[in-house]
Amino acid sequence: MSTTKFDRSVLEQMLTKRFFYAPSNSIYGGVAGFFDYGPPGTALQSNIISLWRQHFVLEEDMLEVDCSIITPEEVLKTSGHVAKFADWMVKDLKNGEIFRADHLVDGFFEAKLEGDRLAREAESGEAVATTTSTDKPPKKSKKKNVVVNIKLEDSVRAEYEEIRAKMDNYGGEELGEIIKKYNITSPEANNPLSAPKEFNLMFETAIGPSGQLKGYLRPETAQGQFVNFKKLLEFNNDKVPFASCHIGRSFRNEISPRSGLLRVREFMMAEIEHYLDPEDKSHPKFAEVRSRKLRFLSSATQLSGKTDLTELEIGQAVDSKLVDNETLGYFLVRIYLFLIKIGIKPDRLRFRQHMANEMAHYACDCWDAEILTSYGWIECVGCADRSAYDLTVHSQKTKEKLVVRKALAQPLVYQKTQLNINRKVFGSQFKKDAKIVEDHLNSLSEAQLDELSQQLQTSLTITASNGTNYELTKDMLSIERVEVREHVREFTPSVIEPSFGIGRILYALLEHSFWAREEDEQRGVLSFPVAIAPIKCLILPIANRAEFSPIINDIGRRLRKANLSSRVDDSAASIGKRYSRNDELGTPFGITVDQATLQDGTVTLRERDSTHQIRADLATIIGILVDLVSESTSWPQVTAKYPIISQPDAEE
Amino acid sequence: MSTTKFDRSVLEQMLTKRFFYAPSNSIYGGVAGFFDYGPPGTALQSNIISLWRQHFVLEEDMLEVDCSIITPEEVLKTSGHVAKFADWMVKDLKNGEIFRADHLVDGFFEAKLEGDRLAREAESGEAVATTTSTDKPPKKSKKKNVVVNIKLEDSVRAEYEEIRAKMDNYGGEELGEIIKKYNITSPEANNPLSAPKEFNLMFETAIGPSGQLKGYLRPETAQGQFVNFKKLLEFNNDKVPFASCHIGRSFRNEISPRSGLLRVREFMMAEIEHYLDPEDKSHPKFAEVRSRKLRFLSSATQLSGKTDLTELEIGQAVDSKLVDNETLGYFLVRIYLFLIKIGIKPDRLRFRQHMANEMAHYACDCWDAEILTSYGWIECVGCADRSAYDLTVHSQKTKEKLVVRKALAQPLVYQKTQLNINRKVFGSQFKKDAKIVEDHLNSLSEAQLDELSQQLQTSLTITASNGTNYELTKDMLSIERVEVREHVREFTPSVIEPSFGIGRILYALLEHSFWAREEDEQRGVLSFPVAIAPIKCLILPIANRAEFSPIINDIGRRLRKANLSSRVDDSAASIGKRYSRNDELGTPFGITVDQATLQDGTVTLRERDSTHQIRADLATIIGILVDLVSESTSWPQVTAKYPIISQPDAEE
Repeated sequence: MSTTKFDRSVLEQMLTKRFFYAPSNSIYGGVAGFFDYGPPGTALQSNIISLWRQHFVLEEDMLEVDCSIITPEEVLKTSGHVAKFADWMVKDLKNGEIFRADHLVDGFFEAKLEGDRLAREAESGEAVATTTSTDKPPKKSKKKNVVVNIKLEDSVRAEYEEIRAKMDNYGGEELGEIIKKYNITSPEANNPLSAPKEFNLMFETAIGPSGQLKGYLRPETAQGQFVNFKKLLEFNNDKVPFASCHIGRSFRNEISPRSGLLRVREFMMAEIEHYLDPEDKSHPKFAEVRSRKLRFLSSATQLSGKTDLTELEIGQAVDSKLVDNETLGYFLVRIYLFLIKIGIKPDRLRFRQHMANEMAHYACDCWDAEILTSYGWIECVGCADRSAYDLTVHSQKTKEKLVVRKALAQPLVYQKTQLNINRKVFGSQFKKDAKIVEDHLNSLSEAQLDELSQQLQTSLTITASNGTNYELTKDMLSIERVEVREHVREFTPSVIEPSFGIGRILYALLEHSFWAREEDEQRGVLSFPVAIAPIKCLILPIANRAEFSPIINDIGRRLRKANLSSRVDDSAASIGKRYSRNDELGTPFGITVDQATLQDGTVTLRERDSTHQIRADLATIIGILVDLVSESTSWPQVTAKYPIISQPDAEE
Repeated sequence: MSTTKFDRSVLEQMLTKRFFYAPSNSIYGGVAGFFDYGPPGTALQSNIISLWRQHFVLEEDMLEVDCSIITPEEVLKTSGHVAKFADWMVKDLKNGEIFRADHLVDGFFEAKLEGDRLAREAESGEAVATTTSTDKPPKKSKKKNVVVNIKLEDSVRAEYEEIRAKMDNYGGEELGEIIKKYNITSPEANNPLSAPKEFNLMFETAIGPSGQLKGYLRPETAQGQFVNFKKLLEFNNDKVPFASCHIGRSFRNEISPRSGLLRVREFMMAEIEHYLDPEDKSHPKFAEVRSRKLRFLSSATQLSGKTDLTELEIGQAVDSKLVDNETLGYFLVRIYLFLIKIGIKPDRLRFRQHMANEMAHYACDCWDAEILTSYGWIECVGCADRSAYDLTVHSQKTKEKLVVRKALAQPLVYQKTQLNINRKVFGSQFKKDAKIVEDHLNSLSEAQLDELSQQLQTSLTITASNGTNYELTKDMLSIERVEVREHVREFTPSVIEPSFGIGRILYALLEHSFWAREEDEQRGVLSFPVAIAPIKCLILPIANRAEFSPIINDIGRRLRKANLSSRVDDSAASIGKRYSRNDELGTPFGITVDQATLQDGTVTLRERDSTHQIRADLATIIGILVDLVSESTSWPQVTAKYPIISQPDAEE
């Protein structure tokens, strides 16, 4: 394949031309952060999802659910989203323009450092690599900061780099202080800025005709699964571990969406919530994946200011506690295998651990599958151990028990002090005060009861919560040590959550699949794996003539019967142009009908990446195609059996 | 199958118990009109959608797109939704409760007529059928109207029935007048009501941090397709007819959601927009479906106050102009075939034509596929000819040309009067007024130009738009008759729109698939066709013993490899109970592992509807199962080859 440098604008142009996706409502000017998928984009997305279902839902017997997008405020108050799901924004005090504060501050220092780099380059007469303490993509704001070639003192440069490295840690107050300290103004307009203000990223709406009931578009699909936990557990015959999952749209009202499909306001996600015993995070299938090697970027490495990757077998990673537990490790491997299967390049994939301050306070461990794109390393799948946090808060709020009851192999046996009240005597003695005295006694600890038991030889005076004294006698109650046997343990399960951003994965895949033919840079190709290619087979007559129509229709019918998506290209363009056009759609195979077909019923089958063709009768070719798509044969196997023909219709 | 009467509450209880669906966020009390699908509901929905894709998208080479849910206000202003997508509501003036006006008024007269029916029944001593002029389900509001047995005068009864029949035609003013005239109060509370007020059914939200940009959650997926028309046409090599389609969520902020899945605020829909030449609405595949019989309820029949169905071949229906055109007719058949394929009963399916006043003013013809359920006949698929309305209004608003250019077989030749201005002379003569004079001349009609031509023998004075007189001379311009040859016709395509409410279809299907075993009414069954059954195969060990585990796991692995969803039920319940439980999930087949399996490797295969079982070795059974699911064999064929065994483990 081509070795020419990747040029994002060339890919983007091609994706627009072939309508993989486009800004939504573009004839109305559109609104940033919304994209529509055209036919190839939709098919690609739907094939990725279908493979995801096969790889995760079917393979692991997950319980897939489909929940409402509109969520009442109370649910998202409990989950913490109403209070905390926010970014900091600043306003240009003159023109009112709004910026995301961390992106703006980062852009300011990025420009200073770039100016310094250029100045040093000019000074030394050679290129100097950018050195920053993280390799995160620059948090660019849409407006450009002017880069001026000014060399910085070494200490100043270090100071700026440190600020950038810590960007994810800053809250509104710190960002405000930095803006003040460095006199940061709005990019381009150079106006003074407001203090940072919190902006909640959820889209709000009102439910029902009264307008009084507040709802939000869900920011993730997780909560819909958690609130259904009890029903799901029941469906699973009350056993853990098990996983639920959800594929669907979520929404984030980004302050300034950018980077194409990477930061959008409406996006497709697929989330798994795997519920397990917090005391046993082993995984029955871990042995099957133990020796799989992954590339890790640990939090320790990052804290030391480095970004070196460590390649380790997942077994070693779990044994050494780099990865917290088997189940988390198992999912990292499953995520890896899924991404590779759809066509992500393994050498552009890594697992980055969250640093302590990046994680939610309740999380035990969290890893992101990051994919390298022209925008830098992009978080595409998160895999977090959320502990029992979500189920606990929903249970506390709703008083609904969200727990698992597990039969104990050995009953748990222990001694406990037990209070028995003789209600008859109690009632006749204390009358309407009986309840007050009883409540007082019930509130006592075991130690207090033991003490009471010793003191209560004949009678005893106690002071209840109402301040009144009551006299207790021996016949009113007994206090004894009893043996308790528990056969069931009740616990709130922990949750391990692999969460996939389908749009980001899809975009990364487009970059990884794209190349240009060496003989002609204009001829772009998208080398999707067959399983996820939007269209499996192109059908084209050598020329747009009536006598080819019945054959073309027949081929279409046969492919449909085999459940293969095809596309006829009978436009007037040259055969080479039509092949090219469908290489740009990533169509792996093409059947061409020509003059010989009319005579002997043979057609050619072309493979996208090699452009090689074979020739055989139609039935044979369809059979080969079915086998190729179901991956029961491969192109090299096919060409070993059927010779590659010289092409009568050159593609050039 | 069972002949016992259908009891909706029994079905609903079962659907809840098996978590087909449940009110969203129910542990928080939930909000009306939102439902979550549990694992079997989600799988059922996803199988219906997958079959829909096969039946429509693949078969007709449709261009599937996936557009944003959040839509800027301007788009929905153009489409008419901001102004017109509304229902009328009235408010209880004392307690503030809000009702949908037409439902409230209908409920009032429904109660009166029911009281009359009961009074007449009591009088005559025998049951009297309800007679209304339509067979629509009563537009019940959630609150109950008190039914009092009072006999009405025949004329009053007729009057009330007429009001109910015309309910869909009333606007806010008429509803207000009826409320006043008949002293209608709020149900149950009996308080006075406000005048009807319009309530827009779209959920509103604000996009971006400024809060100034208004957006709505889409009320249908159609508009996303229309705004992308130009890109879609280009993708289709500029040719019509072609269809785009979209599967996704839409939203309607119903005033009072009710009837379970039938009237909800968030729902899955699948919409097709088929673009075609308004002068040629024939369909190339119409011949293939011509003789298919459908059951029609025409608008003429309804206007005559009847509901009799006419069974006709679609060919006859189109020939007689009952159905407006071939393409509309073709889609009615395709809709029919799809619904039957997923399990809708043909005798509970009809096509009802919209009456003139029901249709949007721009529509040519509109048919609803209605399915009979316990709620009455329910509109599940609409199929409308929307003419060129949508593309026209979007084009007018955005100035984007949304047209098709079609090469003419014969060029169109005609004469036309043409004005040629000699700009040189014009400029030197009129100087800065040249443009004014030119504009004036260009604004003239052909007839005016012809007249001018005759008058302009030497010179002529004209009065331009600015009121100034200008003198024209012969050398300044020529006016001539020329022959024009047009090789291309440009037109805005018409759109035929089949629009599917997936949730309604799914609910109707649940009702049509449900029955109870005759020997035991408690044993409900959902007889889904294999293709859409949520789980294809149940795997169960005769008892929960360790020695069965390896076999159970092996069966699971083999089924997954064959891409078949399965479910292990190794709970402690009796085998009969476990079969029952999975009949309730509609699982068509079950493999049972028993003592004999350990000895000779054979297992039994049970079919859901007959409860019959056969026995063979595991590999054979898996092979049979694969063939059954792919429909390359049927259960009767299987039992013809493998004898039905007597069941050692009776189900009772």
